[in-house]
Amino acid sequence: MKLLRHGPAGAEKPGILHEDGTVRDLSAIVSDIGGDVLSDAGLAKIRAADPARLPIVTGARLGPCVAGTGKFICIGLNYSDHAAETGATVPPEPIIFMKATSAIVGPNDPIIIPRTSEKTDWEVELAVIIGKKAKYVTEADAMDYVAGYAVTNDVSERAFQTERSGQWTKGKSCDNFGQIGPWLVTRDEVADPQDLPMWLTVNGKKMQDGSTRTMVYGVKYLVSYLSQFMTLHPGDVISTGTPPGVGLGMKPPQYLKAGDVVELGIEGLGQQRQDVIAD
Amino acid sequence: MKLLRHGPAGAEKPGILHEDGTVRDLSAIVSDIGGDVLSDAGLAKIRAADPARLPIVTGARLGPCVAGTGKFICIGLNYSDHAAETGATVPPEPIIFMKATSAIVGPNDPIIIPRTSEKTDWEVELAVIIGKKAKYVTEADAMDYVAGYAVTNDVSERAFQTERSGQWTKGKSCDNFGQIGPWLVTRDEVADPQDLPMWLTVNGKKMQDGSTRTMVYGVKYLVSYLSQFMTLHPGDVISTGTPPGVGLGMKPPQYLKAGDVVELGIEGLGQQRQDVIAD
Repeated sequence: MKLLRHGPAGAEKPGILHEDGTVRDLSAIVSDIGGDVLSDAGLAKIRAADPARLPIVTGARLGPCVAGTGKFICIGLNYSDHAAETGATVPPEPIIFMKATSAIVGPNDPIIIPRTSEKTDWEVELAVIIGKKAKYVTEADAMDYVAGYAVTNDVSERAFQTERSGQWTKGKSCDNFGQIGPWLVTRDEVADPQDLPMWLTVNGKKMQDGSTRTMVYGVKYLVSYLSQFMTLHPGDVISTGTPPGVGLGMKPPQYLKAGDVVELGIEGLGQQRQDVIAD
Repeated sequence: MKLLRHGPAGAEKPGILHEDGTVRDLSAIVSDIGGDVLSDAGLAKIRAADPARLPIVTGARLGPCVAGTGKFICIGLNYSDHAAETGATVPPEPIIFMKATSAIVGPNDPIIIPRTSEKTDWEVELAVIIGKKAKYVTEADAMDYVAGYAVTNDVSERAFQTERSGQWTKGKSCDNFGQIGPWLVTRDEVADPQDLPMWLTVNGKKMQDGSTRTMVYGVKYLVSYLSQFMTLHPGDVISTGTPPGVGLGMKPPQYLKAGDVVELGIEGLGQQRQDVIAD
């Protein structure tokens, strides 16, 4: 299933992408795409409904495809070729950092360049959305805790991240720095999360063209690994790192400016489109 | 006012500490201590109630004193003497990092030592609780956005934080690593947040004995500074760093073990008591 949230920011309703390409409203079935709805039982409830009988929604904005995200956890330098382009080496264990959940927006909401920013950059990433509480889970069991997957843009301000006194979170947490969606694709529809082509363009020019195949620490490993440090809750999002082609890695580096258009996608998970605007 | 939340974890109700020392239930006045209730208008509604007429609560657990925290932001190395004890220098601007909000618990809830931990440490800190949406605010206006203050224990696993591949969040986000309370003291009751004695003991022995006077970047500066990077929302918590006396700084370093008892407090803001237990 492709689950989504439609409507104005802060007042989104649950929805599903029907196989005929229309968005159908799920308000009669579940209250939102979050919490218990992300459990296997919650998803079964949606699966039991006939989308063809649900109301069609047209022209609505898409919100972030998951509600109630308590943690927006990111994995740093998780593609060997991306680590190389930034001059870093692959870390001996996953690097984890947090984006503020207040950065989360819909897939087509604008990228807002912060007032003093000169180095706003893009990162197409595979997001894993947690479906049930996970603590000390093994790699073998990890997939039981995954509700599904989505595309994220881990927008990053490189000067804030690395030139303004330590800890990356500062350059990762600005408003509108975390587009999630268009939809949450349930895990049963993703045969192999480690074999998904992904791409990103700026003004139509291909910048990132990679695959989750070159991910260093895969989805199962990450869910298990993170759960050794903290309990993962339904709706938590793990953004698993980006392949090569970010602005920071260009020679010379190239960053976003107002008026640019960013498009990105992952095979089977849909695509996003963002206008870049000044704050 | 001293606002609090009482009851079982996940089902806390709003309350207030009356001047006679009793806890009074605020459920008839507000739904929780969070969101709009933290605005000046929300707090005025509580202020208009007569606590002597509210039901007395006895024997209840205290929860974290604020609900709906979207961001748990911490400031690193923000006391010059603490920076020195850890072998670091005071950074040219505030270091910011996030603790997972899933780490937040009540003031007297146990510190849980993660299974593979050998370096679980303590940090008494002054927390600032945001009362209304703040974006690009000036230092002069910053206090308008502060609902009040509380004690926090920024429990930290030093090996996870610094020896397990980059970014401190890994050592800061474990379950029960963020005791907040006992109460949120509204800002009108804190004459000078930069002149508050603070202390922490382990098994009755004084380990930290400092004052917010030696804070490098003060409350006004931090609220303004953070709001340049991201919107602060009601209920967001800024934990402002710790004075000297953490386990990491001892020679040799000393860490918590199951059976220890940690007590900590800040003048005018109350105190916490935690049993240390194994996971």
